[in-house]
Amino acid sequence: MSKIKIGLFGFGVVGRGIYEVLLKSKNANAEIVKICIADINKPRTLDASIFTDRADDILDDPEIDLVVEVINDADAAYRIVKKALCSGKDVVSGSKTMLAFHLEEFIEIQKRCGSALLYDASSCGSIPVIRNLEEYYDNDLLLEVKGILNGSSNYILSRVFDHSMPYETALRQAQELGFAESDPSFDIDGLDALFKLVIITVHAIGAYVHPDRIFTYGISSIHESDIRYAREKNVKIKLVAQVAKISESDFTMFVMPEFVPPSRYIYSVDDEYNGVVIRGECYDRQFMFGKGAGSLPTASSILSDIMARQHRYRYEYKKLHFQDKPSYTTDVRLKIYVRYSETDIPSLLHFLSVDEQYVSKESRYLIGEILLSELMAKRDALRGKDVFIANIPTFFTDLD
Amino acid sequence: MSKIKIGLFGFGVVGRGIYEVLLKSKNANAEIVKICIADINKPRTLDASIFTDRADDILDDPEIDLVVEVINDADAAYRIVKKALCSGKDVVSGSKTMLAFHLEEFIEIQKRCGSALLYDASSCGSIPVIRNLEEYYDNDLLLEVKGILNGSSNYILSRVFDHSMPYETALRQAQELGFAESDPSFDIDGLDALFKLVIITVHAIGAYVHPDRIFTYGISSIHESDIRYAREKNVKIKLVAQVAKISESDFTMFVMPEFVPPSRYIYSVDDEYNGVVIRGECYDRQFMFGKGAGSLPTASSILSDIMARQHRYRYEYKKLHFQDKPSYTTDVRLKIYVRYSETDIPSLLHFLSVDEQYVSKESRYLIGEILLSELMAKRDALRGKDVFIANIPTFFTDLD
Repeated sequence: MSKIKIGLFGFGVVGRGIYEVLLKSKNANAEIVKICIADINKPRTLDASIFTDRADDILDDPEIDLVVEVINDADAAYRIVKKALCSGKDVVSGSKTMLAFHLEEFIEIQKRCGSALLYDASSCGSIPVIRNLEEYYDNDLLLEVKGILNGSSNYILSRVFDHSMPYETALRQAQELGFAESDPSFDIDGLDALFKLVIITVHAIGAYVHPDRIFTYGISSIHESDIRYAREKNVKIKLVAQVAKISESDFTMFVMPEFVPPSRYIYSVDDEYNGVVIRGECYDRQFMFGKGAGSLPTASSILSDIMARQHRYRYEYKKLHFQDKPSYTTDVRLKIYVRYSETDIPSLLHFLSVDEQYVSKESRYLIGEILLSELMAKRDALRGKDVFIANIPTFFTDLD
Repeated sequence: MSKIKIGLFGFGVVGRGIYEVLLKSKNANAEIVKICIADINKPRTLDASIFTDRADDILDDPEIDLVVEVINDADAAYRIVKKALCSGKDVVSGSKTMLAFHLEEFIEIQKRCGSALLYDASSCGSIPVIRNLEEYYDNDLLLEVKGILNGSSNYILSRVFDHSMPYETALRQAQELGFAESDPSFDIDGLDALFKLVIITVHAIGAYVHPDRIFTYGISSIHESDIRYAREKNVKIKLVAQVAKISESDFTMFVMPEFVPPSRYIYSVDDEYNGVVIRGECYDRQFMFGKGAGSLPTASSILSDIMARQHRYRYEYKKLHFQDKPSYTTDVRLKIYVRYSETDIPSLLHFLSVDEQYVSKESRYLIGEILLSELMAKRDALRGKDVFIANIPTFFTDLD
């Protein structure tokens, strides 16, 4: 097999990790021949001749077989990946934001142009979720994929919860350790988990759902009283993303904080780790656990995709063509906890039933049944308010 | 894609599970057209016309594309799989004993005859260990695979340990629940875990090591005093199979009870579950957890292999051709606990150093460093004795 020639876009934390991992891996039979970066004048550890700031130096180079794209700018990533795929170059990408918005188009382009796009590193870093959903759970027995997909929000919640650290300190620490993005809203508002969930759902259910159609609620409004409540009930608060079949004909998706009891697998997924539960008919629950982010874990996942391409591996998107595929719905009853102070939650949110209501000088909360579609309809009204929402899984997801 | 026609060998617990799973899976596009069984006169739930007791009714039928083999008799399984592969039929097999002894030959036959053999169900039932080692961890970063690979011995140890059940009662219960084979020695002497480890190692390291060359020690001689000792030290006793690189040039393998502290992933793998830790450079540790055995979990794994063959998937055995592959060695220092009564362990086993020695009216034990090769040399002398050995992981495997 001839040596694969790689053009790399991005030489930040992950890009440098890929360079390092390829050096370590004697049998990879792949070589980075050109690296495209935004700032050509920044001092680098490698010889200057390998760098360029012109994307076309890679995209138009017929010697380069494979584009590896790990840049932060989603729009630039989109243009690069699209041009590469259209010109017949294969691509390995780690850009979840870009993929979550453009995956449908990329599936079509791959088909039309014969090129292949692999992106296991985009969801859960070193945990091979996409590959397993695509290859191993490639039948219609799958019922649910649920997990902690964002390492930095999980790190923050672990610090706050297990170490009684103030939220602000935990956030700062996550940033210092490099787990959180410099703009932390991406992590703590649940967007990172949402984008990964969109990608996962394509391979889990065979359906692409636009991020805007999915209820997403983050952890930034968590309050001491929420933590106290969870401790009293002997549960942890985790930011959970899930896609689940709720019947033969429907599935639902959402990202929100959840009260997780000790009996669940994801209860013990702490710090910057990710954990994914795959539940299906016949095989029940499988749990995959590992480092979801970071330079080398992500780079090792990229390496797996690079080597897969050497063996002509591509996603088949088999489930997109399944018969009797379920449709996306938000017409699902959830039991939720809503803690609020000024916002008049009882007037704002229409509950189907209310189980508990608590009012004190310090905090107020309400526990009840609500439709996911109602949360979707009110999400703009809820944004930025001193309101914290957590899912209490009792309805369709009582098994994990 | 045309419907795949399957000839099934075996209609026991797993065989019936496969039949059921294929009925459930609308998109499998596969049909069992003939089932070969040992006793044609036994009453069955299906129409008699589907059954035969002549293997050649399947093997010589040109209409049948794929042989699925899930029988207990390893010799018969060998003959069936060999004939099928040699005549160009693809095979999905769940027979770990047969595979552990004949995998080298089957790799050669696949190459020569162009047919494909898949066997993910043979190791850890529904957990896709083989597929992930082959496809995702397909580089030379992998350092170690370690896990609880046998559900019934783990079930027994969980009962004994967490529920203070007498060993004999736990064993009987495991048999009643269908976790243990009717001849339980296969499970409790570690053979089942050993055979799975042999198969896993082919895909983890790219090396086939004959089962006879691997030190294997089971749990049948466990004693109340061993359990008491482990409880005092706040560890659990688990039957652990492992393969680990100990240097750039060497790797080692063994199956034996191990003292597992709460910080390790496998500590919380209880009852009939399996758990596998994959450790590598860059990605650190990944943990996969699920139901390792049972009718439907195993059948769902077989279904994955059946669907993989529809998409022309085959194992590439890439690592067999890696440069600078490590060699198998037993020249490894282990720290072990040996509890004994009559057998004169201090004379029988040569320890490199002794850390602790304990003698009371009720029990004696010794903790010290020993070469794995010394345990290998004395394994016949240890067999059937009132001796219990447990690995205390401190040397090369202190990370999982």
